[in-house]
Amino acid sequence: MSELKLSFAEVADLVSGELVGGKAELEIRGVNSLAQASAQELSFLANMKYKADLVNTKSALLLLSMDCAVPKYSTFAFIRLNNPYLGFALLQRFFHPQMQTTALHHVSAVVDASAVIAEDVQLDAQVSIGKNVVVGARSIIAAGCVLADDVVVGEDCLIRPNVVLEQGTQLGNRVIIQAGAVLGSDGFGFAWDGQAYVKIPQVGKVIIADDVEVGANTCIDRGALENTMIGQGVKLDNLIQIAHNVEIGAHTVIAAQAAFGGSAHIGQGCQFGAQSAVAGHLKLIDGCIVGAKAGVIGDVKVKGMVSGFPAVPHRHWLKASALFNRLPKIWQKIKSLTDGEK
Amino acid sequence: MSELKLSFAEVADLVSGELVGGKAELEIRGVNSLAQASAQELSFLANMKYKADLVNTKSALLLLSMDCAVPKYSTFAFIRLNNPYLGFALLQRFFHPQMQTTALHHVSAVVDASAVIAEDVQLDAQVSIGKNVVVGARSIIAAGCVLADDVVVGEDCLIRPNVVLEQGTQLGNRVIIQAGAVLGSDGFGFAWDGQAYVKIPQVGKVIIADDVEVGANTCIDRGALENTMIGQGVKLDNLIQIAHNVEIGAHTVIAAQAAFGGSAHIGQGCQFGAQSAVAGHLKLIDGCIVGAKAGVIGDVKVKGMVSGFPAVPHRHWLKASALFNRLPKIWQKIKSLTDGEK
Amino acid sequence: MSELKLSFAEVADLVSGELVGGKAELEIRGVNSLAQASAQELSFLANMKYKADLVNTKSALLLLSMDCAVPKYSTFAFIRLNNPYLGFALLQRFFHPQMQTTALHHVSAVVDASAVIAEDVQLDAQVSIGKNVVVGARSIIAAGCVLADDVVVGEDCLIRPNVVLEQGTQLGNRVIIQAGAVLGSDGFGFAWDGQAYVKIPQVGKVIIADDVEVGANTCIDRGALENTMIGQGVKLDNLIQIAHNVEIGAHTVIAAQAAFGGSAHIGQGCQFGAQSAVAGHLKLIDGCIVGAKAGVIGDVKVKGMVSGFPAVPHRHWLKASALFNRLPKIWQKIKSLTDGEK
Repeated sequence: MSELKLSFAEVADLVSGELVGGKAELEIRGVNSLAQASAQELSFLANMKYKADLVNTKSALLLLSMDCAVPKYSTFAFIRLNNPYLGFALLQRFFHPQMQTTALHHVSAVVDASAVIAEDVQLDAQVSIGKNVVVGARSIIAAGCVLADDVVVGEDCLIRPNVVLEQGTQLGNRVIIQAGAVLGSDGFGFAWDGQAYVKIPQVGKVIIADDVEVGANTCIDRGALENTMIGQGVKLDNLIQIAHNVEIGAHTVIAAQAAFGGSAHIGQGCQFGAQSAVAGHLKLIDGCIVGAKAGVIGDVKVKGMVSGFPAVPHRHWLKASALFNRLPKIWQKIKSLTDGEK
Repeated sequence: MSELKLSFAEVADLVSGELVGGKAELEIRGVNSLAQASAQELSFLANMKYKADLVNTKSALLLLSMDCAVPKYSTFAFIRLNNPYLGFALLQRFFHPQMQTTALHHVSAVVDASAVIAEDVQLDAQVSIGKNVVVGARSIIAAGCVLADDVVVGEDCLIRPNVVLEQGTQLGNRVIIQAGAVLGSDGFGFAWDGQAYVKIPQVGKVIIADDVEVGANTCIDRGALENTMIGQGVKLDNLIQIAHNVEIGAHTVIAAQAAFGGSAHIGQGCQFGAQSAVAGHLKLIDGCIVGAKAGVIGDVKVKGMVSGFPAVPHRHWLKASALFNRLPKIWQKIKSLTDGEK
Repeated sequence: MSELKLSFAEVADLVSGELVGGKAELEIRGVNSLAQASAQELSFLANMKYKADLVNTKSALLLLSMDCAVPKYSTFAFIRLNNPYLGFALLQRFFHPQMQTTALHHVSAVVDASAVIAEDVQLDAQVSIGKNVVVGARSIIAAGCVLADDVVVGEDCLIRPNVVLEQGTQLGNRVIIQAGAVLGSDGFGFAWDGQAYVKIPQVGKVIIADDVEVGANTCIDRGALENTMIGQGVKLDNLIQIAHNVEIGAHTVIAAQAAFGGSAHIGQGCQFGAQSAVAGHLKLIDGCIVGAKAGVIGDVKVKGMVSGFPAVPHRHWLKASALFNRLPKIWQKIKSLTDGEK
C-alpha cells in the first residue's frame, strides 16, 4: 500500500464532493474495489452491477453518486459527488502518480549523434534512436523501443517497451504509447500493373496530438501523400488498425480491434466499440457512436449510435436483430398463411 | 530427419494403442502427414477430410481411430487407439522435444543488479531485465524480450523473441509466450471530466497460471485495481485482446483475434472461435462454446454452443441464418400474399 | 521536396500516357494530391470522390483516365492514360526510391558466428541474428529485429524494426516486412488428453516467395508438419492472422485484421476485405473476392465475390441484408395479414 494518505476532508475537496457521516480528519491510504477495500481504503460505486458488494465492503469511505440512494445498512461514511468514476480516477492519480523520469540514459541505448535529446529524458536499455530524432523534456523511452529517423517526441511522453515509431512520426506532449505499438508503418497502397502489384511509396507521416494514448500492438499507418492525424486526447485501445490518411477528431475513444479504412475522417468526441470497422474515404460526424462489431459503409451525418453491418441506427438494428432471431417462428407463420390459402 | 527412433511396439506403448498387422521390432524415425510421410515415418488419420490420402501414403505405420474402418487397400501396419490426434501429439513430442536451455546469458543481455535469475536460465541477445525481476530455473528468455520491474517468471518457461512483460506480471511454470505478445499493458480506463478523458492508473497485475500458452502479438492488459487472471492450461492463439480484470478459467482455449471486455469472467474448459467477442462484466459458465465471430452480450448460464451477434444458441442461429439467406424468397412470398389480397 | 525532376514528356513516357495541352519541356518536381499539389507537382484523379478538388488544384499537370471527361475549367495540362493510379505509383517510385542499404553493421548488432551475411547487407542497432542464418545481398535488417536460428532472407529485402523471424523461416527476394510482424510462431495445435491440452510441436516452416509484403504486427504461424506458404507478390496488411499450413496463392491481397484458419488453401489473385475470416481446411478458388467482415465456412468453387457470415454470393447478401433492415416493416405486414384473417 502507498505511503501517501488523504484525510476525508481532503478527499472531498479533491473530488469536488460533499462528505456525509464521517469525521473530516480521518484518513485513507488508498483506493480499492468494494470487495477488496480495507478499512483504510476508499471505495466507490460506479457500476450498479456491483451494488451487492456494498453489504460486505470493509471500506470506511465511499464515493456515491448524487442520485444514488444511501444504503440503510451502511457502516461507512460517504462522499456525494456527480461522477464517482471520475472521483475514483482523480484519487487513483493521487495515490499512483505516473512514472517519473530517472533522467538516465542506459549504456546500451544507441543514439545517433544527430539526435536532439532534451534534458531529463530517460532512455532505457536496448533503445535505438535514429538520425535527426528529437525527444522532448522528461519523456521516457522504455526498453527495446525503436525511433527511426526524423521522429519527434514531445515533452512528458511515456513510450512503453518495444514500441516502433517509424520514420517521420511526430508525437505531441503527454502522449502515452503502450508496448508493441507501431506508428508510421507503410500504408497498404499498391497499383496493379497487369501482372503484379506495384508498391506505392508511402511518404506522409503520422501526426499524434497532445494527450493521446495508443494501446498495445496497435498499428497506425503513415499517410500515402498527406498525413495520418490523431487528434488531441484521443484514446486508442489495443490491436487497432488505422490505415493511411485516416483523421480522428479530438477526444474520440476507440475500443480494441477496431479498424479504419484509408482516408476515413472521424469526428470529435466519437466512440467506437470493439471489432467495429469503418470503410475507407468515409466521413463520420462529431459525437457519433459506433457499436461493437458494427461495419460502417456510408457517411454518418447524424449524431447518435449506429450498429450492425451494414451499420444502421442502433434502435433499428436492435429491432431487426430481435426479428432475425425470430425468423424461424416468422417463417412458420408465413407457411401457415400459405397453407391456409390452399 | 531426427536421429531418434521408436520400434512399432514402443509406438504402441507410447500412445496406449494396439499394433495390428506389423512386426513389433520395425522402427520409425519420425511422424509426418499421410501425403508427405516416407516409409520410415509414422502417419495418422485424425481429420476425415484427408481420408483420400490413405491410398497413396508411403507411411509404413498408421495411427487409426478405434471406430474407423480399416482401409482394404492398406499396405501399412496400423495402431488402433482412441484418439489418433493425441497419439500424434505424443509422438511429435518424442521426436521434437521442446527447446532446452543453454544456461547461457548473452553478453548483450541487460540484467538489473536486483534481479534474481535462477540456475540454468538462458538469456538471449538484446534482452532487458528490470528491477526485482525473478526468473525461475531453466526458463529461456529469447532475444529482444523486455521484462519490466517486478516481473516473476516461473520454472521451465519459454518466452519467445520481443515479448514484453510489463511491470508486475507473474507467470507460473512451463508457460510459453509466443513472439511479440504483450502482457501487463495498461487497461483501457478513462473517466470523462467534462472536457477531456482522465487516465485511471492501472495498478492491478497480470497473473498467468501454470502450463498456459499465449500466442504471437496477443495482448493481456493488467487489472485496474485487482488482477487479470489466466487459469491453468489455458491456450491463447495470436492477436487476442484480453482487457483488464478479465478472468479465464482453467483449460479454456481461445482462437485468434478474439476479444474479451473488461471484467468478463470466463469459465473452465470453454472454447472460443476466431474473431469472437465477449462484452465486459459478463459471466460465462464452465464448458461453454462460443462460435467464430460471435458477439456475446449477456451472461451465458447454460452449457453448450452460442453463435451470432447478439449470440444465441448455435442451433437457433443456424436456422435463423439459413432463413436470413432465404429472405429474398420469403419476401417474394409475402408480397404474393399481399397481392393476392388486393 | 525532392531534388529529382521530370519533364512533362518524361512523365508521359514513364506512365505510358499522352501529353495533352502542355509544353513537353516543362518540369515537375514531385507528386501530390489535388488539394495539396503546388504548381511544380503533378497530381492525379483516381477516385471520383475527389473530383471536386479539380476546381481548385494548383497542380500544373494531371494524370487523367482515358474515359474521364476533360474538365472545361481546367488550367492545367494533363496526361491521358489507362490507369492514373498506376501512373501515380510509378511516378512516386521515381521521386521516392526505396531505402537503399548503407552496407553498415551497427556495432550493437549481435550476429552468430555461423551466420552467412552477404555483401552490402545493412544490420541496424540492437539486431539479433541466430545460428546458420543466411541474409542475401543488399537486404536491410532494421533495429531490434530478431532472426532466430536457420532463418533465410533473400536479396534486396527490407525488414523493418522489431520484426521477429522465428526458427527456419525463409524469405524470397525483395520481400518487405513491416514493423512488429511475427513470422514462424508456433501454430495453435493441441490435443486433449482427458485432463489437459498437450502441445503438438510445430515443426513446419514459413516460406515466403518473392515480392511479398507483410504488414505491421501481422502473424504468420509455422506449419505443424508441412509448411505455411505465401505465394509470389502477395500483399498482407496489418494485424492479419495466418494459421499453420495455410497456403496463399500468388498476387492475392488481404486487408487488415483478416484471419485464416489452419490448412486453408487460398487461390491466386484473390482479394480479402478487412476483418474477413476463412475457416480451416477450406479451398478457395483463384480470383475469388471475400468482402469485409465476411466469414467463409465452405469451399469457394466459383469466381466472384462472397459476403456475410456464413458467406454467400455478394449480390445475394446485399439483398438479404437490405431485407434484414426491413424486418420490422416486414413483420408489421405479416401481422396485418394475420390480423386480417381473424
